[in-house]
Amino acid sequence: MAGEERVVIVGAGFGGLSAAKSLARAGVPFTIIDKRNHHLFQPLLYQVATAALSPAEIAVPIRAVLAPGKGGSIEILMEEIEGIDTARRVVRAVGGDEIAYSQLILATGSAFTYFGREDEWRPFAPALKSIDDALNIRRRVLLAFERAETTDNPDLRKRLMTFVVIGGGPTGVETAGALAELAKATLAKDFTNIDPRDTRVVLVEAVDTLLNAYPAHLGAYTERKLADLGVEVHTNSPVKRIDENGVLAGDDFIETSNIFWCAGVEATPAGKWLGLKTNKNGTVPVSRDLTIPDLPGVFVIGDAASVEGDDGKPLPALAPVAKQQGQYVAEAIIRAQQGQSPQGPFRYRDWGTMATIGRSAAVGKFGKLEVKGFPAWMLWGAVHIAYLVGFRNRINVLVNWLWNWLTYAKGARLITGPDEAATRALDNPKAVDEELDKSVNALD
Amino acid sequence: MAGEERVVIVGAGFGGLSAAKSLARAGVPFTIIDKRNHHLFQPLLYQVATAALSPAEIAVPIRAVLAPGKGGSIEILMEEIEGIDTARRVVRAVGGDEIAYSQLILATGSAFTYFGREDEWRPFAPALKSIDDALNIRRRVLLAFERAETTDNPDLRKRLMTFVVIGGGPTGVETAGALAELAKATLAKDFTNIDPRDTRVVLVEAVDTLLNAYPAHLGAYTERKLADLGVEVHTNSPVKRIDENGVLAGDDFIETSNIFWCAGVEATPAGKWLGLKTNKNGTVPVSRDLTIPDLPGVFVIGDAASVEGDDGKPLPALAPVAKQQGQYVAEAIIRAQQGQSPQGPFRYRDWGTMATIGRSAAVGKFGKLEVKGFPAWMLWGAVHIAYLVGFRNRINVLVNWLWNWLTYAKGARLITGPDEAATRALDNPKAVDEELDKSVNALD
Repeated sequence: MAGEERVVIVGAGFGGLSAAKSLARAGVPFTIIDKRNHHLFQPLLYQVATAALSPAEIAVPIRAVLAPGKGGSIEILMEEIEGIDTARRVVRAVGGDEIAYSQLILATGSAFTYFGREDEWRPFAPALKSIDDALNIRRRVLLAFERAETTDNPDLRKRLMTFVVIGGGPTGVETAGALAELAKATLAKDFTNIDPRDTRVVLVEAVDTLLNAYPAHLGAYTERKLADLGVEVHTNSPVKRIDENGVLAGDDFIETSNIFWCAGVEATPAGKWLGLKTNKNGTVPVSRDLTIPDLPGVFVIGDAASVEGDDGKPLPALAPVAKQQGQYVAEAIIRAQQGQSPQGPFRYRDWGTMATIGRSAAVGKFGKLEVKGFPAWMLWGAVHIAYLVGFRNRINVLVNWLWNWLTYAKGARLITGPDEAATRALDNPKAVDEELDKSVNALD
Repeated sequence: MAGEERVVIVGAGFGGLSAAKSLARAGVPFTIIDKRNHHLFQPLLYQVATAALSPAEIAVPIRAVLAPGKGGSIEILMEEIEGIDTARRVVRAVGGDEIAYSQLILATGSAFTYFGREDEWRPFAPALKSIDDALNIRRRVLLAFERAETTDNPDLRKRLMTFVVIGGGPTGVETAGALAELAKATLAKDFTNIDPRDTRVVLVEAVDTLLNAYPAHLGAYTERKLADLGVEVHTNSPVKRIDENGVLAGDDFIETSNIFWCAGVEATPAGKWLGLKTNKNGTVPVSRDLTIPDLPGVFVIGDAASVEGDDGKPLPALAPVAKQQGQYVAEAIIRAQQGQSPQGPFRYRDWGTMATIGRSAAVGKFGKLEVKGFPAWMLWGAVHIAYLVGFRNRINVLVNWLWNWLTYAKGARLITGPDEAATRALDNPKAVDEELDKSVNALD
């Protein structure tokens, strides 16, 4: 299926897609492989989980972005990769297909880690990484309120109306803020037997501040703003146990049936496929040109890689890093094909980072400049709209945000899932999830 | 949970929701029960299945429509009903909850029927009734193209690129037209190894014309327009067999792995719950005031009911009939509570019906007036936008339609489904569906 000279990209996240676009612009043929058919704008995924946006508003078909046409210059394959034979220079897909490469760009991203307790904790504390995760969490959140409305048991009602978000990074902060807004504003007048404003939203963080990547005073500001939204913030509360009754964080046991995991991140198995020794977080240590010594033609970029910046510290796992690295390796491949001399080492241009807190505040850091409050929130919205792929998505998201902001309504409050499961789940949500998980695992 | 005098509505489709709104306007307390949390605008469901619209654009949370607030005057319960005890005047939910009623409005709608072959045919020919059905069909359609792109087997490729829609009513016509448009326009330039314009879309109908509810010449017009879009229409082709290899319709066996069922409709089990003898299609025969002799306080409306019109013929199973019946029974209840004399019999005011064919034609019948072609299509769009519940939905659908129409792009081309299932399904879509079905059935 692939010729002698063929660039192969694995992963169509921010890194892989950015490499693909640069190659396409230069007319270099390539094959891009992803296990899904869409590129996902992950920074807004929590808004799908909290019913503000629809999946199609933050995801675009990879084929729609790259528009391969017919002719073989761009090939897009929806396959799940399970290994690499670097000696024969082929990538192996589940089911047996082999894709030959001359240059290989591994942009496989990261996944949530449960610090070795995944089997034990994950069934009760789903993570937020894919669209299906987001729809699963949306279903759980909305069903919790529906179940609370129909039960006469006050203890069960209290547990159903308690939400615990684990992890005080940007995703945890954004999710907790959005959940509080959903419960205390959007749903406030939607029920007869319960008052959603009684909902308890708890954000749990192991260390002593939120948003560790930011200066401490912005973390403290975030904590105050979350408190204004009605979120209880528990810092210095490492998670020790998660079970069907709730979560033990620090010395507090919080009774709840709604736990969401936004804590540790680890790289996907690119390193394992290459047979390399990885860092503790699963990342592949790469040279400053994003290659690997003794593995010519292989690049690793984005969250899957670990590379030092100019200050000698490893670069953060952020979308802009992945995007710039994608452009860098595409450029390296184009230069080599054209017989030009190699570029210097990869240099990350840090334009800044932001995190949002509910519906009218955000914090941001742009080099030495720090921003917070409403102006930061406006900036956050503008930046995210600008980076969304696809003109129509931008219009739709803008319409929905304006509407949400003016009315507090959230349009995507749908409970979906394999047909009957949705209503069955009212009586035993965990049983449904376990059955679904079992059936999916049975296919492996 | 309910007092002495309590109106209970089962079902939040067009009929149930219209009754609920009329009661709410008059300040009459009621409880409305549905197994889902949303009202679905079914006439546009095929656009979700063919990736043009997102679920949230054609569905609204019942709570958002009725905004019950706190106080008990309006109660919304997400429960699945499994029986009625008319002697004790209670409705029984799965799980054991009982809801007492003084007046009961049954608006449980209809479901697709496979003419007694459901177990055998349904696994290969899913129907289009709920959002989950639509997402399932969308996943199958998009995965068929992905699988065709990666296979080297020409026979398999041909089977994957053949789509058969069964049933020449409005849903079948609309689905076949939309599939042809998806394959031949939207996806035309999206693949490298296949040309989606080679896709074969077949519409199969048992009798000799399409759209039987319309005059024969509009059916013939529809057939010509579908042919222009590249749809093969097979009339006089009753389905005799469906299996993993394809469908036997008339004397033709069509090899395909994509069969969609838009044929027979039958009423949901309201009649069974009441212990009544129903019509052959499952509908409950009701008097012209929509009540049942000897069952005081029980109304059956919409697709679940069968009632004669002024011409002595049963009224069709259409959304406008259900809506007008909902208003009628609400009015009857309000009059009784206020001690006013009963209304006359229910009279259906027929404003007309329409069906669309692809992206620029439609047919319509308004009393003696018939319309077709592009003006009919514009009218169809305007009417559907006007009837969509929720201001924001209207804007979003309008933006998406304009965009689709101008660019042929369809924004909701996402393959989703329980996490890993999506990629596994590439190799064996049926196994995945069966596993999912099994797991869901196991919960019963």
